[in-house]
Amino acid sequence: MLRRFAIIGHRAPSSGKINLNDLAGSSGRLDVLSRAVNTALFLSHGIRDDSQVILHLLGGPGPARRIFFEGKNVRGLHPDERAIAGQIGRALKEPVPAIGQKSELHSGFYHSGGTLEQTLAEWRKEGVSTFVLDAEGQDISEIKKIQRPLGFILSDDQPFSESDLDCIDEELRISLGKQWLQGHACITIIHHVLDQS
Amino acid sequence: MLRRFAIIGHRAPSSGKINLNDLAGSSGRLDVLSRAVNTALFLSHGIRDDSQVILHLLGGPGPARRIFFEGKNVRGLHPDERAIAGQIGRALKEPVPAIGQKSELHSGFYHSGGTLEQTLAEWRKEGVSTFVLDAEGQDISEIKKIQRPLGFILSDDQPFSESDLDCIDEELRISLGKQWLQGHACITIIHHVLDQS
Repeated sequence: MLRRFAIIGHRAPSSGKINLNDLAGSSGRLDVLSRAVNTALFLSHGIRDDSQVILHLLGGPGPARRIFFEGKNVRGLHPDERAIAGQIGRALKEPVPAIGQKSELHSGFYHSGGTLEQTLAEWRKEGVSTFVLDAEGQDISEIKKIQRPLGFILSDDQPFSESDLDCIDEELRISLGKQWLQGHACITIIHHVLDQS
Repeated sequence: MLRRFAIIGHRAPSSGKINLNDLAGSSGRLDVLSRAVNTALFLSHGIRDDSQVILHLLGGPGPARRIFFEGKNVRGLHPDERAIAGQIGRALKEPVPAIGQKSELHSGFYHSGGTLEQTLAEWRKEGVSTFVLDAEGQDISEIKKIQRPLGFILSDDQPFSESDLDCIDEELRISLGKQWLQGHACITIIHHVLDQS
């Protein structure tokens, strides 16, 4: 069953040129997003074909862009931060596609317009059960019982914004414990729990 | 209780200059080691002060070098692969210290000579219970019962070598499931299990 991970990049650039030598600084914490992509998709030797990542690049200039990596079809992607950010950088040179239009740039690698609101609307149409990572939520083991496609929403290094919270107000909250973990660590734990069920 | 992670970098350079733009290629998979350091040490906002990483750089030229990051004392380290590899690169310009001599290069950041054999000898002296990550081992939840300092041995993207296996022949094996996970994902799961105990 497909596992979807939606990551919010509040300051991540949505267009233009990025500096691959400064992912954590002038590139708006693209290092955080790249580690999330790595951990959602890669096993030690191979790609998880049941995993999909959607990055939400909200940092401008211009309209927000969404980047999709689909494990089943990804080819030739290397697991290091620089390689993943380089792939994202290639999308940023293209115009942002219209909301609702998903354009393939490379095998398993797509982009589209829209924000988290659009992603959630798409997930609802696809019958996805959506969860928000929240230290105060219910225990993660609850997700094992669900027999529908699963979607998980994570923020980057910043808390959810007011606008994010408006979108996810009614979604279920799950907790991975009391520590505020890095996003890629949350993804590892979700995979681990689901791998064992 | 201190959590120690020993990572074997079979091809990681032990001296000389590294190319920060090619961590996954000519730098001997320093990307894998950097992600391990990130995940062992960093929370979303802060450093785990109960975690220590020892990288084993076995790729030459010259003698093997060990790099120590001690969460309790680390200052000013950024979590991205390039920043962590840059820190390692600074050690590589220095002569390899004698085995048994641990030299501090920056707060919480040390290097020393020696290989896994030396690390295990040090751990034995310190009363550390040592575990090797192995898909065929006993369930990870067993470690929660142990009331001694814990040490975990992981390989990079390659399996343990014959020489590694000679050292760890008698250590306990623990399993995180059937998938062969990336090293940093293993570290996340170990932290998660221990955080909950």
